[in-house]
Amino acid sequence: MNLANLTSTDIIDGIFNNDIALVSKAITLIESTKAEHRTMANDIVQACISNHNTVRIGITGVPGVGKSTFIEQFGTLLTNLGKKVAVLTVDPSSRITKGSILGDKTRMLELAKNPNAYIRPSASGSTLGGVARKTRESIIVLEAAGYDTIIIETIGVGQSETAVHSMVDFFLLLKLAGAGDDLQGIKRGIMEMADLIVINKADGNNIKNAELSKTEFTRALHMFPPKENGWSAEVLTCSALENKGLRKIWQVISTYCSLMKDSGFFAKNRQKQNEQWLVQYLEQEVLTAFYDNNKTKELLPELKDEVMNGKTSPFAAAEKLLKLLK
Amino acid sequence: MNLANLTSTDIIDGIFNNDIALVSKAITLIESTKAEHRTMANDIVQACISNHNTVRIGITGVPGVGKSTFIEQFGTLLTNLGKKVAVLTVDPSSRITKGSILGDKTRMLELAKNPNAYIRPSASGSTLGGVARKTRESIIVLEAAGYDTIIIETIGVGQSETAVHSMVDFFLLLKLAGAGDDLQGIKRGIMEMADLIVINKADGNNIKNAELSKTEFTRALHMFPPKENGWSAEVLTCSALENKGLRKIWQVISTYCSLMKDSGFFAKNRQKQNEQWLVQYLEQEVLTAFYDNNKTKELLPELKDEVMNGKTSPFAAAEKLLKLLK
Repeated sequence: MNLANLTSTDIIDGIFNNDIALVSKAITLIESTKAEHRTMANDIVQACISNHNTVRIGITGVPGVGKSTFIEQFGTLLTNLGKKVAVLTVDPSSRITKGSILGDKTRMLELAKNPNAYIRPSASGSTLGGVARKTRESIIVLEAAGYDTIIIETIGVGQSETAVHSMVDFFLLLKLAGAGDDLQGIKRGIMEMADLIVINKADGNNIKNAELSKTEFTRALHMFPPKENGWSAEVLTCSALENKGLRKIWQVISTYCSLMKDSGFFAKNRQKQNEQWLVQYLEQEVLTAFYDNNKTKELLPELKDEVMNGKTSPFAAAEKLLKLLK
Repeated sequence: MNLANLTSTDIIDGIFNNDIALVSKAITLIESTKAEHRTMANDIVQACISNHNTVRIGITGVPGVGKSTFIEQFGTLLTNLGKKVAVLTVDPSSRITKGSILGDKTRMLELAKNPNAYIRPSASGSTLGGVARKTRESIIVLEAAGYDTIIIETIGVGQSETAVHSMVDFFLLLKLAGAGDDLQGIKRGIMEMADLIVINKADGNNIKNAELSKTEFTRALHMFPPKENGWSAEVLTCSALENKGLRKIWQVISTYCSLMKDSGFFAKNRQKQNEQWLVQYLEQEVLTAFYDNNKTKELLPELKDEVMNGKTSPFAAAEKLLKLLK
């Protein structure tokens, strides 16, 4: 089959038949910036929208925390439990380093060979907003293809955690015990987003430290007000390397999903996320159109110069340009 | 003089003559949302722009840290050193509580009576962006009126710290010693913005605790990468209540200004801030125009419903609206 001549309908059929080549093709179209690809991607995503019984899990943690090993082992556990697992990575930095594209393939060798798992390297993009959009659309396609457990990994720096948090049902923060990491870990924003904190590498000489960290993080979590949905984040330890403690993590996630589905929060949260995507995407496109306008392109650099040299106030300069655009 | 019939020129003249009534009138115009007031305010701000030899100091800290007493004592010290001090507050919450309008007057009684100090309650506004804009324009007017030391206080919650950081030369974080505050204080973002951390209430039984906190914060600061401008934030203790340690704080700020002026960073930073104001204000206005558009007002609620009910993808919905607007 020549993938280049496929219609949207061919690809949609392929997705519903869990044809991996066509699932990948769909995601490639989603990641493309060409207008004709975007049209096809929109048709495909629209056809894939449905209320599948899936769970979207966000996983974050600083480099070195052992995310790859964790996802490799955790993903394998889930496939052993009969799940179909898809792994996506949100890494806006990869557009520069291009590192993770090769990296992802070699990082999770075992899971990559697993017929019930699908690993997709990070979408590239010039903005976090662009990368986030592609990831969100890919989730919809993967769920239509039958993947019921979607893992979204983020690299644990900057704003990508907030983006991932806004597209998942459950947010897991991986930590290391001891050393400076404890202090740096108290990033209030991340702590507040976490539904579960897992201290990884609780093995060998590190077990005692991990337990100490567990106590410390549990205490820190108590300082935050309770979540809107009534869930209290907890702290667990695990060793991804020795494959210990992973089943307990899945139990917590399952309990969470079950409670949140019963209370209605699960569905309400996805609705709210959809609304946020709409608003974010609209605002992003409106601003892009503004910056692409020829008058803006012509005048903005001049105005910036004037403002930077203190010749005019930022607000007067802005109003000059806005008047011209009206 | 009937303040209602003044022209922009009258007010500009008044500002340059340090006529307090006309300075206040100018800020009232800046804070107004009426179109004719905005036109006058733009003229006034434009005329006031100049490179005055001033320092803009941001002060933040959680409620209870003693900001009012600190600013009262610190402002008095500065006027004793021959400075002319203006105090502004960025408190986007005050539009709801309206508390600080009365509060500011009673909070800093001594400074309010000082002929070389000017205290202005928080501008009200529906958005932090709006409040920030008004504060920035007020700074320009106050500097033209001869105030050489501008203190911008923020309430220490949410995004207002970032807004204030983007309009000052020096950012001071007030802290309390001991208790849960230490842990909560390790908000990475705020720590990174601070040029100086001051542990307040280092008096009575609290002196030892304050010294311990100083050590702890100094250690925490070492975990951050050095600042672009070469400055290393330090930690001091003070007692605003007993008027101890304030002179040392002013020495640090003076040293900072002198070093940064020599290196060129001081001027470069103000230029960069001006450029940021331009961009932020432009984007805010572009989005406001989008939301005020009749087609947006008509269609957006429907599209939100469709998206929330899973009938259409957020991106397809957005593109539908964007096409209509073109």
